[in-house]
Amino acid sequence: MTHNEFSRGRFLAVEGVDGAGKSTQMPRIEQWLRRRGIRTLATREPGGTPLGESLRAVLLDPRFAGMSPVAELLVMFAARAEHLAKVIAPALEDGVWVLSERFTDATFAYQGGGRDLDAGTIEALESTVQGGVRPDLVLVLDVSVEAGLWRAERRRRRTSVFPHGSAAVRTECGAADRFERENPEFFRRVRETYLERARERPERYALIDASADETTVTERLIGEISKRLM
Amino acid sequence: MTHNEFSRGRFLAVEGVDGAGKSTQMPRIEQWLRRRGIRTLATREPGGTPLGESLRAVLLDPRFAGMSPVAELLVMFAARAEHLAKVIAPALEDGVWVLSERFTDATFAYQGGGRDLDAGTIEALESTVQGGVRPDLVLVLDVSVEAGLWRAERRRRRTSVFPHGSAAVRTECGAADRFERENPEFFRRVRETYLERARERPERYALIDASADETTVTERLIGEISKRLM
Repeated sequence: MTHNEFSRGRFLAVEGVDGAGKSTQMPRIEQWLRRRGIRTLATREPGGTPLGESLRAVLLDPRFAGMSPVAELLVMFAARAEHLAKVIAPALEDGVWVLSERFTDATFAYQGGGRDLDAGTIEALESTVQGGVRPDLVLVLDVSVEAGLWRAERRRRRTSVFPHGSAAVRTECGAADRFERENPEFFRRVRETYLERARERPERYALIDASADETTVTERLIGEISKRLM
Repeated sequence: MTHNEFSRGRFLAVEGVDGAGKSTQMPRIEQWLRRRGIRTLATREPGGTPLGESLRAVLLDPRFAGMSPVAELLVMFAARAEHLAKVIAPALEDGVWVLSERFTDATFAYQGGGRDLDAGTIEALESTVQGGVRPDLVLVLDVSVEAGLWRAERRRRRTSVFPHGSAAVRTECGAADRFERENPEFFRRVRETYLERARERPERYALIDASADETTVTERLIGEISKRLM
């Protein structure tokens, strides 16, 4: 291993359907890495930059319910291009580990699986926007669609501001965003795409059963990170 | 000619650097077509739909001065995908002539020429988003960069709300948007790209000297439309 390979940070993506537990597990993984002396940066998609958060607000806005799927796809990748250029790439270069709540697998799952857009089109955009950058490890939190929808619904009832503290995200207090208003069949296709991608690429993907309690799920995540990246 | 070819509307794009006179000439062309009994729809890019106008506001916002060029390119095409799906394609199908202030040539000129993005990447996005849809005629209004900048500056001093009446466009009264703040060298590359594209494709492009008075420019535009499409 060269010095550069040693000093470059690792890139982890946390994926899964709504309500799978991503935003609960993100700070737990971050804390565990920091205790091991690893500098980390937690971020999310769509968003992660001022431009990206503005685009996120547009993407989640229920007023744009009928948005063309190709438009949605391109706004996702626009936010990603900015995120990569301004946040992710500089952090990795600096030796920081980047932990992103969602990345391009979410696009394959939601816009590919959910909206039935062609995977080849998404792959072409992935190459245009990311060059060779891919996560070193994709942690897919898997729960049944019904369990995820129930958890997401419960969170909305408890939440009147977004947990990350972003002002522009929720258009109404605790209301469902444009994606959360999709039907269960949509989320079934999203989940199926995550599962397929994880099974096809076991070397870079860890499929985590996220139906257990939060502490058990954290242990599983940490186990995968330890085994694969430490 | 089949019935379908007769009944489909024509698609005209009005292009040129800032201050070339596009928004002055648009209603004049529209009025002339209407007097001839042609149903017309005037629209603009980026924008033309509620989603597109939200994305336009993001694109022009001077707070995003350092936006990554690829992000800018993808937001442009996202707005275009929506514009095409919701406005342009249905109108053309319905036999209406569509007159768009800017279309994909502006992307080749501003993001390709101005920002130096690869033309092949833009062409790939053009195919993904538009399929085979291209304007039947691109009217390129050509003025020197200095003349255009001076006209645009004069318009800003006179204008405190956007002439189209859109609320979300100007972030400050009469202030320069994110593109208008570029340097003259940027606009020189934009103009050069328009000129190149018009010269390479004379069958679909009309290059109009727009340094003359408004009435003369209108006559030139109408002359080209008559000769090529009537």
